[in-house]
Amino acid sequence: MSLRVSTVEFRVRYAETDQMAVAYHAHYLVWCEIGRTHHIRGGGMSYREMEAHGVTLAVADASIRYRAPARYDDLIRVATTLSEVASRTVTFDYTVSNAETGQVLATARTVLISLDAAQRVVTLPPDVRELLNACALASS
Amino acid sequence: MSLRVSTVEFRVRYAETDQMAVAYHAHYLVWCEIGRTHHIRGGGMSYREMEAHGVTLAVADASIRYRAPARYDDLIRVATTLSEVASRTVTFDYTVSNAETGQVLATARTVLISLDAAQRVVTLPPDVRELLNACALASS
Amino acid sequence: MSLRVSTVEFRVRYAETDQMAVAYHAHYLVWCEIGRTHHIRGGGMSYREMEAHGVTLAVADASIRYRAPARYDDLIRVATTLSEVASRTVTFDYTVSNAETGQVLATARTVLISLDAAQRVVTLPPDVRELLNACALASS
Amino acid sequence: MSLRVSTVEFRVRYAETDQMAVAYHAHYLVWCEIGRTHHIRGGGMSYREMEAHGVTLAVADASIRYRAPARYDDLIRVATTLSEVASRTVTFDYTVSNAETGQVLATARTVLISLDAAQRVVTLPPDVRELLNACALASS
Repeated sequence: MSLRVSTVEFRVRYAETDQMAVAYHAHYLVWCEIGRTHHIRGGGMSYREMEAHGVTLAVADASIRYRAPARYDDLIRVATTLSEVASRTVTFDYTVSNAETGQVLATARTVLISLDAAQRVVTLPPDVRELLNACALASS
Repeated sequence: MSLRVSTVEFRVRYAETDQMAVAYHAHYLVWCEIGRTHHIRGGGMSYREMEAHGVTLAVADASIRYRAPARYDDLIRVATTLSEVASRTVTFDYTVSNAETGQVLATARTVLISLDAAQRVVTLPPDVRELLNACALASS
Repeated sequence: MSLRVSTVEFRVRYAETDQMAVAYHAHYLVWCEIGRTHHIRGGGMSYREMEAHGVTLAVADASIRYRAPARYDDLIRVATTLSEVASRTVTFDYTVSNAETGQVLATARTVLISLDAAQRVVTLPPDVRELLNACALASS
Repeated sequence: MSLRVSTVEFRVRYAETDQMAVAYHAHYLVWCEIGRTHHIRGGGMSYREMEAHGVTLAVADASIRYRAPARYDDLIRVATTLSEVASRTVTFDYTVSNAETGQVLATARTVLISLDAAQRVVTLPPDVRELLNACALASS
């Protein structure tokens, strides 16, 4: 069994550039969130629906390694995998690349923690956990 | 009776610059929000408390005229007045300037509409309206 | 002859929501920029190429009327027209709507001013002006 | 000799909240940038001046551990140290806390890489390196 990889593409917004004429580094975390949203949707339940069911996944840990800059209007591709589903955390890995050249711009990992509606840490409900496990894997 | 003017200052963040090496225009609306928050706080009740009491003020209309650019690390001053309190709307005016040179960078106006907790348009509760009226005026 | 309307679609990012659980109002100006970039590209020369040729269009005036909220993961559609090309300014109009329901969320207008590489106001170079005029019109 | 710690404070902007009613996680990287700018300024040369001298420090690696949420209008304190100056990289550490309660909200580290005006990786000029070394240390 192998991990499913989903990809989503979008262009760098002018708003995302900084005076170095490259995409400002914090926006990569937003791009990862786009990848994550897209990946979860592909698993059959949108994150929006998940939140409506009272499960919130909050970022508890994030790390990014920047390798090359992105520029205004570049077509960005985020490839996302759901690497681990634990009792209370979910780990995603991301590769951000330039969709036209294939150059890798950054790699990132985020660990999300499961919160209930009152924002307390809780174990993932069994059905959500099952759903995330299915979301993680490529159909054979 | 004259309108109270409050001022708040902060520096342009690197994140707020774009590849023109000036502050990206959309951030001025955020700066106006900072001025508005600061102005309301000066009236004796924070906007945070106002929301906790079930009153939300949502921006219904915004207009900005940009006159000169702001650059990274510039000290920005936002001067805010609460120009009108109507039954369901509140109007704020802003002058954004460079605090060190005095140069006016932009003028702006936003009209906010009163929403209840369910985000329906409602008339402002009398006590909030009174509070906003007091907030608008300079003490003589 | 009628104005060309171009449309571009994207989803509301989690990063764009605020604690009212709607898209924060300043992001609409970013969405207008996406519409503008897309519209200009459709005219045969990207804005990126335009900047590379030394022409910068800076927002000099912006106004937005907000009509209904956008929520996380909503599919947004921005319809853009280039309404006027003058000697030193270009005016764009935007309609932001929910692509799935058709509901209009906001209407906006921005006036952009032509700057040279040194960020001085200049008349638009004749070839750029011609290009923008062509960009504005629907092919008959 | 011990490392100098500088602190800077600001309030959480409404724009920075998300629909979880907490500050969106990517903004913490912006807050770190504010801490870094403030720290460098305290060393006698602003980062703005450094860039004007042709030295750019680009974020090459970032990691954050989130411990507790920040909410709208909270007074945030960022404590920054410059932990290491190497030939081509500079490492900063950050503690983000609630200035009123003292609660630690996040800890973060960024590694910045030295670029020249053409955005190529270069060794730090000796004078800038000396300046950063002095910036790092507390005066005894």
